[in-house]
Amino acid sequence: MEDYLNPAVVRQAIRSGFWRRPTAGLAPDYAQANLVVLPQRLAFDFMLFCQRNPKPCPLLDVTDVGSPNPQLLAPAADLRTDIPRYRVYREGRLDGEVDDLLGLWRPDLVAFLLGCSFTFEAALLANGIPVRHIEEGVNVPMFVTSVACLPAGIFHGPLVVTMRPIPEDRVVRAVQVTSRFPGVHGAPVHIGDPARLGIRDLAKPDYGDAVTVREGEVPVFWACGVTPQAVALEAKPELLISHAPGHMFVSDLKSETLAVL
Amino acid sequence: MEDYLNPAVVRQAIRSGFWRRPTAGLAPDYAQANLVVLPQRLAFDFMLFCQRNPKPCPLLDVTDVGSPNPQLLAPAADLRTDIPRYRVYREGRLDGEVDDLLGLWRPDLVAFLLGCSFTFEAALLANGIPVRHIEEGVNVPMFVTSVACLPAGIFHGPLVVTMRPIPEDRVVRAVQVTSRFPGVHGAPVHIGDPARLGIRDLAKPDYGDAVTVREGEVPVFWACGVTPQAVALEAKPELLISHAPGHMFVSDLKSETLAVL
Repeated sequence: MEDYLNPAVVRQAIRSGFWRRPTAGLAPDYAQANLVVLPQRLAFDFMLFCQRNPKPCPLLDVTDVGSPNPQLLAPAADLRTDIPRYRVYREGRLDGEVDDLLGLWRPDLVAFLLGCSFTFEAALLANGIPVRHIEEGVNVPMFVTSVACLPAGIFHGPLVVTMRPIPEDRVVRAVQVTSRFPGVHGAPVHIGDPARLGIRDLAKPDYGDAVTVREGEVPVFWACGVTPQAVALEAKPELLISHAPGHMFVSDLKSETLAVL
Repeated sequence: MEDYLNPAVVRQAIRSGFWRRPTAGLAPDYAQANLVVLPQRLAFDFMLFCQRNPKPCPLLDVTDVGSPNPQLLAPAADLRTDIPRYRVYREGRLDGEVDDLLGLWRPDLVAFLLGCSFTFEAALLANGIPVRHIEEGVNVPMFVTSVACLPAGIFHGPLVVTMRPIPEDRVVRAVQVTSRFPGVHGAPVHIGDPARLGIRDLAKPDYGDAVTVREGEVPVFWACGVTPQAVALEAKPELLISHAPGHMFVSDLKSETLAVL
């Protein structure tokens, strides 16, 4: 039984209610994605925001208005049922979590799927570059920076980054490896001094958990997929639906096919 | 006087009416872009079409609704005056050419700027790879293929490609060089047999001019920026404005900064 390797089988297990837990490790060769669902009225501006800020908001797929089927990532999938857990926000505030969107879906909703760092972390590990928060079994540390995203319509806000400590002699390779994957945040946005991003204390992340930075390691910062969700909530949309943290959409796209070179 | 190297100076010469000719060779280190302007009502679907078909439709910038200022490519530029010649289409048919859009601009218009092949051709030439239509002083040959683009809303149509004959021993390098520039059509879509794209006769392009294919050369096909314009016109929008062929928008972005790796 190695069916957990197959994304269609994984989604079926989720759809049937068999799997309601985080998706890390499922169909490990395939790209997973973050979900943001918004009413059509806000969809153009949100898409524009992603277009202008591709590092924090790498758009992998956008559905037709009212359609729950992601044409590029998995045409046979249904975004109303194929994610293990969803969060529902109203006027920018968390209203609750649900197991499916069958009762919430509307003909004016548009779903955005954004690349997630699982893909580039797998590439780092494949190159023998350590990923500290995985080693320590915690969430990646995330920081709100003093860098403003380019605004679009009602959407504006700061860039959120993740931090991974990388051994000095592997920093160049870490840049090369992640540069191949612009669809999942791509190359780092900054290497070294956290103060340059307005980050005061690496031990106090704004989201996630602190990790150990060892002697001879350099903090390396990547744009984070929390950015678009934070920015969207800041605009207090009447309705916003996202995946619950860690409960991602498992796509039919092999991660390696996202590499540009 | 080397001011033609500076994109801001070039745009000023255009804006003042001094320059009304094609832009090839102006500010050669900087990316030039195709223009498509559409009413807001169609903007989301058109952006979605580009998102789903990034090879023929590499979106470099999209303006805020009603704004003529391209925030990413040149915030100080004005798309109503900074292109030497425009084409105006109504209900999908050419209505005429104009020197500026000052009398036509409306608060509901959205401008899309798409990457153009000048950038990757410069990279080919820099690598000693011949570009035949430049050598022969004609337009690049373009072919409508039997490959359908992924549709989005009212927008649908076939992929249009350009063809460049490449010496057999330079094909690999041509793939590498153009792969670095996904923002300007990127890697080829096909190498070799034209019939695989539904192309019957390389001597009879659908647009542009035929070029010589020599013994020992392989036809290599790239997605073409004519695709989005053809698709948009097919939808017969009330109003569509584009640049006149060869009269591109000269951006502030150095071409090399578009390289992903």
